[in-house]
Amino acid sequence: MSYLTPREFTNVMIDVGEAKINMSPRDMILRGAMAGAILGIAVALAVTAAVQTGLPIVGAVIFPVGFCTLNLLGLDLVTGVFGLAPLPLIAGRKGITLNGMLKSWGYAFLGNLIGSVAVAFLLAIAWTQAFTDVPPAAGLAIAKAADARTLGYEAHGAAGMLTVFVKGILCNWMVVTGVIGAMLSKSVGGKVIAMWMPILIFFGLGFEHAVVNMYLFPLGMMMGGELTVWDWLVWNEIPVTLGNIVGGLVFTAGALYVTHGPGNSRAVVESVKAEHNDTATTSP
Amino acid sequence: MSYLTPREFTNVMIDVGEAKINMSPRDMILRGAMAGAILGIAVALAVTAAVQTGLPIVGAVIFPVGFCTLNLLGLDLVTGVFGLAPLPLIAGRKGITLNGMLKSWGYAFLGNLIGSVAVAFLLAIAWTQAFTDVPPAAGLAIAKAADARTLGYEAHGAAGMLTVFVKGILCNWMVVTGVIGAMLSKSVGGKVIAMWMPILIFFGLGFEHAVVNMYLFPLGMMMGGELTVWDWLVWNEIPVTLGNIVGGLVFTAGALYVTHGPGNSRAVVESVKAEHNDTATTSP
Amino acid sequence: MSYLTPREFTNVMIDVGEAKINMSPRDMILRGAMAGAILGIAVALAVTAAVQTGLPIVGAVIFPVGFCTLNLLGLDLVTGVFGLAPLPLIAGRKGITLNGMLKSWGYAFLGNLIGSVAVAFLLAIAWTQAFTDVPPAAGLAIAKAADARTLGYEAHGAAGMLTVFVKGILCNWMVVTGVIGAMLSKSVGGKVIAMWMPILIFFGLGFEHAVVNMYLFPLGMMMGGELTVWDWLVWNEIPVTLGNIVGGLVFTAGALYVTHGPGNSRAVVESVKAEHNDTATTSP
Amino acid sequence: MSYLTPREFTNVMIDVGEAKINMSPRDMILRGAMAGAILGIAVALAVTAAVQTGLPIVGAVIFPVGFCTLNLLGLDLVTGVFGLAPLPLIAGRKGITLNGMLKSWGYAFLGNLIGSVAVAFLLAIAWTQAFTDVPPAAGLAIAKAADARTLGYEAHGAAGMLTVFVKGILCNWMVVTGVIGAMLSKSVGGKVIAMWMPILIFFGLGFEHAVVNMYLFPLGMMMGGELTVWDWLVWNEIPVTLGNIVGGLVFTAGALYVTHGPGNSRAVVESVKAEHNDTATTSP
Amino acid sequence: MSYLTPREFTNVMIDVGEAKINMSPRDMILRGAMAGAILGIAVALAVTAAVQTGLPIVGAVIFPVGFCTLNLLGLDLVTGVFGLAPLPLIAGRKGITLNGMLKSWGYAFLGNLIGSVAVAFLLAIAWTQAFTDVPPAAGLAIAKAADARTLGYEAHGAAGMLTVFVKGILCNWMVVTGVIGAMLSKSVGGKVIAMWMPILIFFGLGFEHAVVNMYLFPLGMMMGGELTVWDWLVWNEIPVTLGNIVGGLVFTAGALYVTHGPGNSRAVVESVKAEHNDTATTSP
Repeated sequence: MSYLTPREFTNVMIDVGEAKINMSPRDMILRGAMAGAILGIAVALAVTAAVQTGLPIVGAVIFPVGFCTLNLLGLDLVTGVFGLAPLPLIAGRKGITLNGMLKSWGYAFLGNLIGSVAVAFLLAIAWTQAFTDVPPAAGLAIAKAADARTLGYEAHGAAGMLTVFVKGILCNWMVVTGVIGAMLSKSVGGKVIAMWMPILIFFGLGFEHAVVNMYLFPLGMMMGGELTVWDWLVWNEIPVTLGNIVGGLVFTAGALYVTHGPGNSRAVVESVKAEHNDTATTSP
Repeated sequence: MSYLTPREFTNVMIDVGEAKINMSPRDMILRGAMAGAILGIAVALAVTAAVQTGLPIVGAVIFPVGFCTLNLLGLDLVTGVFGLAPLPLIAGRKGITLNGMLKSWGYAFLGNLIGSVAVAFLLAIAWTQAFTDVPPAAGLAIAKAADARTLGYEAHGAAGMLTVFVKGILCNWMVVTGVIGAMLSKSVGGKVIAMWMPILIFFGLGFEHAVVNMYLFPLGMMMGGELTVWDWLVWNEIPVTLGNIVGGLVFTAGALYVTHGPGNSRAVVESVKAEHNDTATTSP
Repeated sequence: MSYLTPREFTNVMIDVGEAKINMSPRDMILRGAMAGAILGIAVALAVTAAVQTGLPIVGAVIFPVGFCTLNLLGLDLVTGVFGLAPLPLIAGRKGITLNGMLKSWGYAFLGNLIGSVAVAFLLAIAWTQAFTDVPPAAGLAIAKAADARTLGYEAHGAAGMLTVFVKGILCNWMVVTGVIGAMLSKSVGGKVIAMWMPILIFFGLGFEHAVVNMYLFPLGMMMGGELTVWDWLVWNEIPVTLGNIVGGLVFTAGALYVTHGPGNSRAVVESVKAEHNDTATTSP
Repeated sequence: MSYLTPREFTNVMIDVGEAKINMSPRDMILRGAMAGAILGIAVALAVTAAVQTGLPIVGAVIFPVGFCTLNLLGLDLVTGVFGLAPLPLIAGRKGITLNGMLKSWGYAFLGNLIGSVAVAFLLAIAWTQAFTDVPPAAGLAIAKAADARTLGYEAHGAAGMLTVFVKGILCNWMVVTGVIGAMLSKSVGGKVIAMWMPILIFFGLGFEHAVVNMYLFPLGMMMGGELTVWDWLVWNEIPVTLGNIVGGLVFTAGALYVTHGPGNSRAVVESVKAEHNDTATTSP
Repeated sequence: MSYLTPREFTNVMIDVGEAKINMSPRDMILRGAMAGAILGIAVALAVTAAVQTGLPIVGAVIFPVGFCTLNLLGLDLVTGVFGLAPLPLIAGRKGITLNGMLKSWGYAFLGNLIGSVAVAFLLAIAWTQAFTDVPPAAGLAIAKAADARTLGYEAHGAAGMLTVFVKGILCNWMVVTGVIGAMLSKSVGGKVIAMWMPILIFFGLGFEHAVVNMYLFPLGMMMGGELTVWDWLVWNEIPVTLGNIVGGLVFTAGALYVTHGPGNSRAVVESVKAEHNDTATTSP
């Protein structure tokens, strides 16, 4: 049976969250770095596709190749950890502490940052003959996007700050849905389909993702963007990260936990009785 | 065996309908809000794709990502409940009352409305720098559509009212087909394929869906549409909801129940004997 | 094991043919009406896609959503019954008579006609503000096609009549291949893939299908086509139906029955020995 | 387990080759005629798609629908038989003779020819109002291609003859890869994916296939091409057939047999030990 | 269960690496030649698609048909061997030596080279009427690319050399991810999906692959490129090969081995306990 019911995948969510907290810092950082790098390279591909076709939606349709690949390889984005690591704490799993949860966030964030910046640097070499040539069209598009998504918000002051925070919420609502998508099936095909859909949505609507941005902004600076590191952090990375925490935890993982999780006894009964269970489908 | 036969999925339909009636109001509203929000965000993506390409059919091909995602997560649209909740009543399941059925419709409707309006508001912030900038092209297209799909009907008087009601029937005929599509398979891939097809049809032909419209019209107003809440309710939401009830219940769930359901004893025999059953396919 | 071997699916073909003959008239007509309606709505979508893109092939790629959906729901097109219902008669199944076979053709035809015309009427309302507005571009395209595919043949006299009959043969050769496609697998994905391919072929090449035309021509008349009911029947529906019978029965179901069916004892042995059977694939 | 290992599918290749030799002439010709007809109709679709879009690659992406359909139905192209029928002879299977192998080639060739020419004739009727109207754009494109792929080679003399022979080699290298593709999986989805890829390659690069050409050239003549039957046979069909034999047998079936087949004892051990076997994947 | 967990596929990686080292030189070269040829022909298709559409991304989306086909047939690219063959050495498998590992690299390289050059020669015949006609547009595009990807780097001196080396790293990071992708599933569909994604990335971003280039540059010279064999080797093949070794071994296979492999005892425990294991998904 390939599809996991809500009851089942909610338990997987808690288990995976617990596994992240129990992971060694070395693995967390290493897997985070690999994940950040793969996500970053997919951004380069998506922007390339969008620039070639003049259609950002084409880039969005292709973009999930990165997310799906890193997930299948067992690697982690901090945005997923934002949503999942709190669940075992809420569920009262033994030995899980707030401190442990925060550490898992920190290590994953650090790993993602290392991988994203490293691959941005390598790609900048590839795109500019090691900084001896002008960037390609996709590079210029990234520089422009980096400016728009920092200085563009700054120009609107508090409203811009609210905007970037809300885009962070909307983004990780979808990204954690993608992370959970991979838990809905045990087949590669099922996982990829369920991941692809929400990741396509967030990229197609231009929401703000903390890890994508660890790549986009450093690369944007190398491609000639006018933003500074300060602009990136204050007008994007920090509010986006906060928005990602809210979106991933409250809108997605937490909400599913509340309605499908082990604490909702009525849902358990209902799940056993009626939702796509084997008895239901073979009853006379 | 992945595909469920008509006999099997008709039973799942009744079981799921019963589960909706037995669900707690809290879960119904929470799941409804999550469902409405995900459907709404998919509308934003579809309109974005249509505007970028100038081809509404491209938006329609992408749109089902929302419906499929919310269904896989075990969330509910009231339009599906319109079709399924009456079945256990018709089938005479113990403890199922008309009152309970109507409550399930009401709670799901309320949940969808909350989620749709909330995400419309968040998206409006994301699209307008928190209302300090002009809407993007997709926002203007939504405002225009909101006007056309209220004031446009009003201009035709009774004929317009009939039109919107018929579009509601045609819409939920397809949407409930999509809901049932998810019951045809136990694999993520099979579910998504069977959902995608009818949802693509309804969106590609511009039919009227009560929950999509809970998002489209409020967002349209925020994006500068000229319609009023009164226009929305009278010239769209109410007749569409009535049409959705007729389409989902009579054309889809009811019709399948009549021909494949447990009350049709001849269908039961036939199903056991010949339709894709294991014996048939391995007989000498 | 998902793929059924020729030996296996040929037996399913006979079983399904027998089931159609044994079905009650009520179910035959009801399922036929639902099938005709879903096929018709898919025609509207396909024409819409073709008109938007200017590429009929895009419409053809999308069109199979209707056929696949109705097949998965256990509904019937008369064109499939043309091919399958004669098989149990040929195979000498007990209790199967020519009369019963012809009745199954008649009921399915009647059901398809009711559903097709009904949904054509509803769609005409949706497309013209209940006949108070001009048809959309897709509507005009359907009117034009309806003229071309009746008056256009008439202008060529006997050669036109031969043409429409041949197009009917070619069409149902492919459509019954699609019906059989659904028998090649027990998974939703496998069924849909195997149905999609031949249905795409027939629509992409503009062949003539009796049930599609029950929708296309009435709708074409409502959209302003110049053809009459007489034109439709004489210069399309009747020769197409005859062509569909020949194509579905002789070219597809009958030919497969002859070479793979239970009467071909050599095929049985061969099938058991070599074609993708488990022994073959695990022999040393 | 859906994917068959090289060890397994190599055995299937030999078994299928043996089955072709043991098949009755009647079945060989009938299945060949059905296969040739389906392949031909897919050529018409692919050319239609290419002409509509102005992009031959679109035609190539769609073209495999024919090959996949005929393969799933258990029908045979002589080009596959070229590659597979010699294997049981090489493997020393009991009762297999060179004479039997050559007969299997001959019957399959004859069947393909009958089906291809017949469907070319029917399609010509459909495309020209039974030869009373001018051909459509796709028909003219086929006439032009038929000239270019005979007279075009002739204009280059011996170099042209070498070219058409090499294109025959390259073609059937891919087509037999497609035939073997269907043996890599027991599910419809897996078979279709593995067939689609090499068939797309050969059509997209315009290689020369003996059976496609049995359809393309007769139809090209009916559509107004200037070539003669002599041109077709001498400057295309015969050298292409010889190239197809070399490509299918030497480059594909033979090469795989040599490295993965039962005669390579080292491969057998290796296969058992390491390649995706169950032990490997569950070892601690 | 179709998806293999990181723990499982890491073991498959070591097993496959060991199998490559133990393979006979004859098989290594033969399989390498077949692999190189299939990869090369896919390059020709991808360039054709890119030239026809004017969109390189379309070529990139199609390109993986070659990689997936050769992988499913059990054939080998040296770039995969670069990443996998060192693993059994690192893991201390019995009988595995550095010498054996280097030999496996050498034989695979040699096989790939033979196949790539051979098919480049055959395709050049097909594209130029055996060198008696001008190349088609795709041929000219390949000649231009061959110049740009040798002389273009040379023009930037050391910076160009660094660029081509980095592009080699980035390339095989993705290609070995594709090789591992095939180990994530035992179904054809799952394998193909997991291979397609990283292969699309590398081709879409124009990274440098040692085996693709064994085809691209010889063919480029035959199509009129100005580069010499010396240019190809010094300014492309050698630095690309070194980059491929680093990328495949360090970034991909080695990194996954470190974090998921048998030497990481914590990962083993974690894997058993929480990641998508059956217990997790069925716990109450």
